Amino acid sequence: AGIGPDCVLLAWKHQPSLFRNIVVVARRGWLESRAVELGMSVRLAYIRNLNQQTEASVLRVLSPCADAEASVVAGQPSPREADAVIRCIRTATDFCLQGRASGLITAPIEKAILRDAGFRFPGHTEFLADMAGAKRVVMMLASGELRVALLTTHVALHEVPGLLCHDDTVQLIRITYQAMRQDMGIAAPRLALCGLNPHAGEQGHFGREELDVLAPALQSLAGEGMLIDGPLPADTLFSAAMRQQYDAIICCYHDQGLIPIKALSFGDTVNVTLGLPFIRTSVDHGTALARAGTGHISYTSLVAAIDMAKTLQRSRP
Amino acid sequence: AGIGPDCVLLAWKHQPSLFRNIVVVARRGWLESRAVELGMSVRLAYIRNLNQQTEASVLRVLSPCADAEASVVAGQPSPREADAVIRCIRTATDFCLQGRASGLITAPIEKAILRDAGFRFPGHTEFLADMAGAKRVVMMLASGELRVALLTTHVALHEVPGLLCHDDTVQLIRITYQAMRQDMGIAAPRLALCGLNPHAGEQGHFGREELDVLAPALQSLAGEGMLIDGPLPADTLFSAAMRQQYDAIICCYHDQGLIPIKALSFGDTVNVTLGLPFIRTSVDHGTALARAGTGHISYTSLVAAIDMAKTLQRSRP
Repeated sequence: AGIGPDCVLLAWKHQPSLFRNIVVVARRGWLESRAVELGMSVRLAYIRNLNQQTEASVLRVLSPCADAEASVVAGQPSPREADAVIRCIRTATDFCLQGRASGLITAPIEKAILRDAGFRFPGHTEFLADMAGAKRVVMMLASGELRVALLTTHVALHEVPGLLCHDDTVQLIRITYQAMRQDMGIAAPRLALCGLNPHAGEQGHFGREELDVLAPALQSLAGEGMLIDGPLPADTLFSAAMRQQYDAIICCYHDQGLIPIKALSFGDTVNVTLGLPFIRTSVDHGTALARAGTGHISYTSLVAAIDMAKTLQRSRP
Repeated sequence: AGIGPDCVLLAWKHQPSLFRNIVVVARRGWLESRAVELGMSVRLAYIRNLNQQTEASVLRVLSPCADAEASVVAGQPSPREADAVIRCIRTATDFCLQGRASGLITAPIEKAILRDAGFRFPGHTEFLADMAGAKRVVMMLASGELRVALLTTHVALHEVPGLLCHDDTVQLIRITYQAMRQDMGIAAPRLALCGLNPHAGEQGHFGREELDVLAPALQSLAGEGMLIDGPLPADTLFSAAMRQQYDAIICCYHDQGLIPIKALSFGDTVNVTLGLPFIRTSVDHGTALARAGTGHISYTSLVAAIDMAKTLQRSRP
């Protein structure tokens, strides 16, 4: 019911070649009814397995669900569709885990509806980690201006200080460093770690997490040959002169990373999950229910997510 | 010992007219010795009272302190100078409180040294509020791109959720709104309030401060005719399309506001204190000790702070 189908349809219309080797996993009708609302004529081919080829002018759709009785209304999420949404994500992920697809690109989901239907994850990322049996994955946002990786994601701010710990910080930095070398083709990534507190705590005057957790974690990594600075004051670290010195900035919490990247590059930012056994990218926006079916949306983030997935695929050994 | 004297000297050299009606309050020697290190020739006039006029080609300096025995070394803050720094700030503030000056523009101070010398405030702002007997002042950062006002400032992040409260939120929004109308000449300021938690808590799923504190505070202001939206997810609120809809964004904590404004406008951002009985602006950077005396600094923020103070003075009734 959100703008996911709109983004797919408009990106397809604008640049069909982008969808070469891409199959949309969606319930029959989701794209069709949205195309009608948008006044678009689109040729869809419903395929039964990933290898089934069609003409280039046709968008391939694979549905793992029975046909719906009623069509989805743009902007009006319905609990009736929750199971089908979850099944689509699960099916696409299975293709990746089985090695039948190299990667997964996700559109936004209406989490509140899925939660009410029993979906016990804050978002795609945690669901995919669970399916893949990955103990620790890393949420990274990437744009032309900046890359940020998050130590904590969808938790209340008051929980963040207690969630920061030495071992997890070390592990996240290692995953990020490895992924940047192997998947992103950056031979010697330069990293920075943000402090948690204003001015990185000013030597313990405004909080001690820098002294007690973050600095010791960097100390533990000292013998591994990484280029990493920190913990540094977060407010100046994203200024133009500072951010250009780093390939990625490790952030303590969701908004510490997402505020600057969206201030600089909203609409051109891609969400990349590091540490999964397959490639996964996503758009940087939500379902924007009020705009679904109106045509007044930007699909640039989906295009960026597809481009990024293809770039990552090329970098893989 | 920081770059404060360098900024004053370079701004003066670049644009002497900027300093018309401005007196530098500093110990005798601070500017002189720095000018020598920078290889600059500057004519200084030490005046005894604010009204003492000099030739336009001379920078006026007023010192409330005895001459120092030894000169300050750039980049090496000395506890010997702490009392003089505090006395300079106090003297300049007294001029404002007595109505002999309209406003105060501050350069960065080395807080750690002042704290060790018994200065019991996290920064200028809190010291000025104390001297003025102002119960609540508001720290606002302003640039051409954005204005942000902070509900909490120099405290550890783990204290922030407990510090947010209904009455203070209401009071801060009122002060901000009034100051924007009266001092900044914006007839009907459009404000937005950030949520504290990621995605503004998603209806209580990641934290309840939006439901328990922030939304009720806005509800209490509903009858006062203000244009204010929120609490809104902070990560998208600073994106180009969103921030342009607002004249100021109220933030829950230091980095929530300072990260985006410095990402967008570091070096052109001014710190403005609202709620004082006089105008006060400041630079957006610290003492940058390693650059003091080198000449490799940017003084654009000081120029912006002086410009802003003059603009505010013109808007005053």
